Amino acid sequence: MKGTVGELGEFGLIRELTSRLTSTPAVKIGPGDDAAVVAAPDRRVVATTDILIEGRHFRRDWSTAYDVGRKAAAQNLADIAAMGAVPTAVLLGLVVPVELPATWPVELMDGIRDECQVAGAAVVGGDVVRGDTITVAVTALGDLRNRAAVTRSGARAGDVVAVTGWLGWSAAGLAVLSRGFRSPRAFVEAHRRPEPPYHAGPAAAELGATAMTDVSDGLVADLGHIAAASGTDIDLRSAAIDIPAQMTDIGQAVGVDPLHWVLTGGEDHAIVATFPPDVKLPARWRVIGSVGSPAGRVPQVTVDGAPWEKAGGWDHFGADT
Amino acid sequence: MKGTVGELGEFGLIRELTSRLTSTPAVKIGPGDDAAVVAAPDRRVVATTDILIEGRHFRRDWSTAYDVGRKAAAQNLADIAAMGAVPTAVLLGLVVPVELPATWPVELMDGIRDECQVAGAAVVGGDVVRGDTITVAVTALGDLRNRAAVTRSGARAGDVVAVTGWLGWSAAGLAVLSRGFRSPRAFVEAHRRPEPPYHAGPAAAELGATAMTDVSDGLVADLGHIAAASGTDIDLRSAAIDIPAQMTDIGQAVGVDPLHWVLTGGEDHAIVATFPPDVKLPARWRVIGSVGSPAGRVPQVTVDGAPWEKAGGWDHFGADT
Repeated sequence: MKGTVGELGEFGLIRELTSRLTSTPAVKIGPGDDAAVVAAPDRRVVATTDILIEGRHFRRDWSTAYDVGRKAAAQNLADIAAMGAVPTAVLLGLVVPVELPATWPVELMDGIRDECQVAGAAVVGGDVVRGDTITVAVTALGDLRNRAAVTRSGARAGDVVAVTGWLGWSAAGLAVLSRGFRSPRAFVEAHRRPEPPYHAGPAAAELGATAMTDVSDGLVADLGHIAAASGTDIDLRSAAIDIPAQMTDIGQAVGVDPLHWVLTGGEDHAIVATFPPDVKLPARWRVIGSVGSPAGRVPQVTVDGAPWEKAGGWDHFGADT
Repeated sequence: MKGTVGELGEFGLIRELTSRLTSTPAVKIGPGDDAAVVAAPDRRVVATTDILIEGRHFRRDWSTAYDVGRKAAAQNLADIAAMGAVPTAVLLGLVVPVELPATWPVELMDGIRDECQVAGAAVVGGDVVRGDTITVAVTALGDLRNRAAVTRSGARAGDVVAVTGWLGWSAAGLAVLSRGFRSPRAFVEAHRRPEPPYHAGPAAAELGATAMTDVSDGLVADLGHIAAASGTDIDLRSAAIDIPAQMTDIGQAVGVDPLHWVLTGGEDHAIVATFPPDVKLPARWRVIGSVGSPAGRVPQVTVDGAPWEKAGGWDHFGADT
């Protein structure tokens, strides 16, 4: 495809984008009408939205349009999974500059479509407008399959804390990219294209998870949300958290304790949940801590019994990418 | 409230925004978790999304934050109604500059909340990030109440075309504002804050509407979508379309045929539908035309038997606001 978004025009671009989509049996009416209609088999729908802007959430020199699409879809689909639901559909709001090559939004859409397919969902609608800053607004929907949603507020003293998926890989990859390097590839790839364990969300709900979230702000910060919502303390055992040898190597090269990435790095969209102590967890879950009664007035997350002193959160208005 | 968005911080702003929200029985889990859970009583959910940016879809010197919120919600809720569905929930993605007064997003949220209440829906989730350009991404959900969705593709030769709601008021108001005036107020208000006839969408579905859409791009353009999707022609009778005396006056003052506003002005979110010829329509619907077999190779919309020669559409990449 040649030319810019402006040359293609709004309707031309929308035609190009929708022609690339695939469907699923859950899509009753897809793109092209006033609204889409999606199956919600258990009479409830799970819904979440995120908005990403160029320069803040992605850089075109660090990520391809395809990767940005995969990532934008992944972070929303992971939120659906973290409620214990199965993703069904995605809607896309897109701001594109007229001078942008038309291949960019088209490849973005390919990435969104492919990530949706990984999670079992389909793109059902969207809106495209022109503007100065590339902006990607994704909404994801999901189905709970007759199970109760697993919120952040159900953790109880005595529960174990377990995690599945990747931790700190995206942060290590970002550290590499920030320093002008493009390798080790595995970490750079993890930053460009996270692989949330979508299936683990509904599986955890089935296993009796009492609270659950995906790790988008960092493990300590996201467990902080569970601790606050549940009114409990959470203690992590650092010895239970695997740190890959290669991550240790990168940490030495750039002068960062890799545990920092694992405990505070977001964007890998691992799934972390609390379970009753007698639960039998599948092999891919690692027990990394426990839930306790609140020792102080404010619920807190500790690591080996002590507060994790480094920056534990991610404030979109405070920190720079 | 004092200070800027940056001074309030991301979590402070989110707390401020969510504290203002109201709920409905359809909201099973509201804002604050990984995702919301909303009732979808008939096992389907209707979903649509729109993205608005400052300078293109609204101007802060022409509209208050509250009005922008009302309008952003209205255009999405109208899409839900135009499928024949009852709106249930809205999600908001918001980009705000750090130097923006914190009152702006807060009043925007008040507007979104209040428009949701008019339509019977509630805000259930969102995302806020900082960026250079104020961007408002709204997703609306709805319930079809066990009726079939009314798409754009069901019009049949012999059907009547009927409309309810306002036509051309927003365009006339925009013409007034563009020329530096602030009155007549009724039209300026219509531009700032459309009043879509939400109830008319499900009511039309119940009355047996064969095709339906809301007027967001302009009557001729939106009926063009129905004609194209249905493979029919549509002819409008200009004599059947009321033009308020005051709109004629404004037209004379600014040198515009008011019929142009009525036929091509979007943003009022009137609801236009096709019905079988024997339908008995309530008083608020006006029959303004008829559906015919396609005369040429391409389905077309005519006015009094002839093509409407003036610009009939709204291409977001071509036209300037």
